[in-house]
Amino acid sequence: MSAPDGRVVVSTDLLLEGRHFRRDWSGGYDVGRKAAAQNLSDVAAMGATPTSLVVGLGIPADLPLDWLDALTDGIRDECAAVGASVAGGDVTRCDLVVLGVTAMGDLGGRRPVKRSGAAPGQVVAVAGRLGYSAAGWALLEAGVPADSPALREAVAGHRRPCPPYAMGPLAAELGATAMLDVSDGLLQDLGHVAEASGVRIELDPTRFAVAEPVAAAAKELGTDPLEWVLAGGEDHAFAAVFPAGVRLPEAWRVVGRVCEGEGVAVDGWEPRQRGWDHFR
Amino acid sequence: MSAPDGRVVVSTDLLLEGRHFRRDWSGGYDVGRKAAAQNLSDVAAMGATPTSLVVGLGIPADLPLDWLDALTDGIRDECAAVGASVAGGDVTRCDLVVLGVTAMGDLGGRRPVKRSGAAPGQVVAVAGRLGYSAAGWALLEAGVPADSPALREAVAGHRRPCPPYAMGPLAAELGATAMLDVSDGLLQDLGHVAEASGVRIELDPTRFAVAEPVAAAAKELGTDPLEWVLAGGEDHAFAAVFPAGVRLPEAWRVVGRVCEGEGVAVDGWEPRQRGWDHFR
Repeated sequence: MSAPDGRVVVSTDLLLEGRHFRRDWSGGYDVGRKAAAQNLSDVAAMGATPTSLVVGLGIPADLPLDWLDALTDGIRDECAAVGASVAGGDVTRCDLVVLGVTAMGDLGGRRPVKRSGAAPGQVVAVAGRLGYSAAGWALLEAGVPADSPALREAVAGHRRPCPPYAMGPLAAELGATAMLDVSDGLLQDLGHVAEASGVRIELDPTRFAVAEPVAAAAKELGTDPLEWVLAGGEDHAFAAVFPAGVRLPEAWRVVGRVCEGEGVAVDGWEPRQRGWDHFR
Repeated sequence: MSAPDGRVVVSTDLLLEGRHFRRDWSGGYDVGRKAAAQNLSDVAAMGATPTSLVVGLGIPADLPLDWLDALTDGIRDECAAVGASVAGGDVTRCDLVVLGVTAMGDLGGRRPVKRSGAAPGQVVAVAGRLGYSAAGWALLEAGVPADSPALREAVAGHRRPCPPYAMGPLAAELGATAMLDVSDGLLQDLGHVAEASGVRIELDPTRFAVAEPVAAAAKELGTDPLEWVLAGGEDHAFAAVFPAGVRLPEAWRVVGRVCEGEGVAVDGWEPRQRGWDHFR
């Protein structure tokens, strides 16, 4: 692997069958794309360009070879989509499918954007999808047939995220003071920014456009779509803090501001659930 | 993480409770040291100096906190022993303890030493321990009490390898044409070198000094210690191929030579077992 500028960022995650994916809900190809995406997006959300990825793979003896082939195809294709390559791996036998994925990225001479740089007076913006994965998961969990294009897109969004990779290095160049990818839910992840930066973040719920697939799923299930947008995880949208007055490209939507204080508040909205608990 | 020279090597492994370690045989601290060591040694055996490590950790809800603390202490201490640092990690719940460990290293301007550079006429040398882990495992498996210093050292060698880290970059500087760390057993791992290089490797069994702990365990169990030396895995000794006539420091012992042909042969010795099968 090459690291021309001498600064590398790295991200690692463990994905477990039954906890992070179900083989009856997701094919090998989708699992591969999702496994790669969640680490590549973490690297990009530090402002780096993903360069390579390694995978430690645990597989049951009776895993169909087709599923394994599809998995590795999915990993490779997600890497290729961002110009990264699969640099190696390790295979071992396990009772369930386990993936240990590590992605690396090149900062191109910049400092990594961390969670700790937000300051009062700055603005909070998001890029990418919010609520798709939670909506799709809710449809699958409820056993509701995805019989419209919108519902199918929500389910597809659960199976495979679509991180706004290019927005990471771009935000770094635009002067982002803090950034992360939304893996556990916007409120919970912005809570990490608030805590690391010693600030309070206030979000304006009217600034969030609820996408059609999320709205359609909420209507189908009779629930509040904003809950999925604000607290749903695994879409790997990017959330960043920028200096006030920054001119942002359309892909970044300003949704809140940074104040003195602590925690994350949404004006006039009370969440029932604050994101995904790693230990549920 | 810093990569001053612009070339980075990376190694990843998945360690599973029950397959790669047993909590009744190894404490958290030993598991941590071993998990870190097996990836740090892989990096060093490419000729690089290990710089950093990331860990994806799956833990059961009822895992004692002391065990987890000891595990992270072990990982940190093994890294510190080679001047590397723990750069981050990820924790998730799992029914068994799973570690996905990825280590990175800096090549200091050199090319990585791969498995494919061996050529006829060159010599094969090893550095570090061979047979300790297999001997210790056999003692534990047989339930033989480790009631002498030699037997205790064999068991300790199973719980925690002692890779000759510094020998990796040194071998690279001395012109090693192929190198790896012995994770699956010397014969099996040299088989990878023979295959990747398109050569035959012939070992002289009289060149191997059987260490006292390995000899003592073999005597206790009435078995051939050379089997553990040649086919036992997990000691993370380094095996390398050097140009003929190279002057090697004492830590490297010449044990064979590279010829035309294929495969690995041991003069006058027939192994019952060719190393550890990943899929046993």
